[in-house]
Amino acid sequence: MVSKKWQKLVKSLQYKKYRKEEGLFFVEGAKSVLELLHSDFKIEILFATDSFLEKTQISSKIHIETAKEQELIDMGTLQSNQDCLAVVYQKENKFIYPEKEELLLMLDDIQDPGNMGTIVRICDWYGVKKVVASNQTVDLYNPKVINSSMGSFLRTQIFYTDLKEYLSKQTNVPVYGTLLEGENIHTLPLSKNGILMMGNEANGISDELIPFITQKVTIPKFGGAESLNVAIATAVAIDNFMRK
Amino acid sequence: MVSKKWQKLVKSLQYKKYRKEEGLFFVEGAKSVLELLHSDFKIEILFATDSFLEKTQISSKIHIETAKEQELIDMGTLQSNQDCLAVVYQKENKFIYPEKEELLLMLDDIQDPGNMGTIVRICDWYGVKKVVASNQTVDLYNPKVINSSMGSFLRTQIFYTDLKEYLSKQTNVPVYGTLLEGENIHTLPLSKNGILMMGNEANGISDELIPFITQKVTIPKFGGAESLNVAIATAVAIDNFMRK
Repeated sequence: MVSKKWQKLVKSLQYKKYRKEEGLFFVEGAKSVLELLHSDFKIEILFATDSFLEKTQISSKIHIETAKEQELIDMGTLQSNQDCLAVVYQKENKFIYPEKEELLLMLDDIQDPGNMGTIVRICDWYGVKKVVASNQTVDLYNPKVINSSMGSFLRTQIFYTDLKEYLSKQTNVPVYGTLLEGENIHTLPLSKNGILMMGNEANGISDELIPFITQKVTIPKFGGAESLNVAIATAVAIDNFMRK
Repeated sequence: MVSKKWQKLVKSLQYKKYRKEEGLFFVEGAKSVLELLHSDFKIEILFATDSFLEKTQISSKIHIETAKEQELIDMGTLQSNQDCLAVVYQKENKFIYPEKEELLLMLDDIQDPGNMGTIVRICDWYGVKKVVASNQTVDLYNPKVINSSMGSFLRTQIFYTDLKEYLSKQTNVPVYGTLLEGENIHTLPLSKNGILMMGNEANGISDELIPFITQKVTIPKFGGAESLNVAIATAVAIDNFMRK
């Protein structure tokens, strides 16, 4: 049985306001939690069903409480969860910058949690380890972001900041902005290091950030669609950077 | 006021069984419907609000009935719809094949409507006009597919069939299968014509289709994620084919 206090707390972590107040978030489901247990994230408490605990070896350092399936479902956001839910400490919002030969992804106001999670998963696939996001970008610790990242949030550093301020300090790296009227990303020589900037789902890159772009790039279009989804465009753009 | 009969019929079109029985589907929202009006799809009836009709020129050949906002919402799947909903005839499930210098996309049991709609939108962006899908692939006329395709279903031909049977007849085109253990799609020479096959979200390409693949391809991975979402992988794969 999960105490009322914990039930209430975990439920509150679905909202950014409470996640921020507590400095906590939660991770649901066996797959993500098992990856989490091998990461450097600090776990406050793990709620798990008897059946999950029977088949899983967990370090004795982890504070575990047994929970019923229905309790996990009630506290979390998954439609079914026969296994576990972990309450985890958020990481510090730490300044990051692109090292030599490193591509850093910049997100200007990504709003949809599914897009955000998918983008984090794409970064993890391509080995892009650093993401700088605007303060208006959806919170990494939103449960939908965590779930759709499929564990990839564990291997991706995200720094939320004022992008204008950030960019005004990064003066010696190329800044690639993905826009509809840039140069063809298929034919343009792309440098190994730099910042790749992706804009908001509806409005693209903000006007105030355009002056910081040193190279506008575009994914060539051969058909009739007006645009690509931002997660799709992020994947294609990063794929182009990763070519030898 | 929309008649009870129409309300019931439109609602039933959310289900494949009734869409099939009636040979109809629906398209919601101003943007998609305006594109629809300029396509060769045959419209059975258009339900529209007075405010939509005031600002829009519509051919007198279209049978229009006025509807209230709440009626559009009740009949359809959108959370808000101040404009219109069209009931439309499905197209014939017509055999298609890749012409010279044409890439055809093949979908083996794509299940998620959001993925399917996004894939159709990607095809439309890249000018891939033909998609052959397994009979188990989610129905193109599912409202979630239509909505997430953002109008791109109008410019994409989809043929549902038994893929094994289809492939056994397509003997002189290269068949590229996207798998985790194929050749690097960045470095492999890709032909201008052929079939690009994408597998199911959870299980990949079916065992029975593997023998038809003439070239296994893989999107190179540089990081830790186990896989890419199928819509993401489709975009990246097509982008690689479209390079000169």
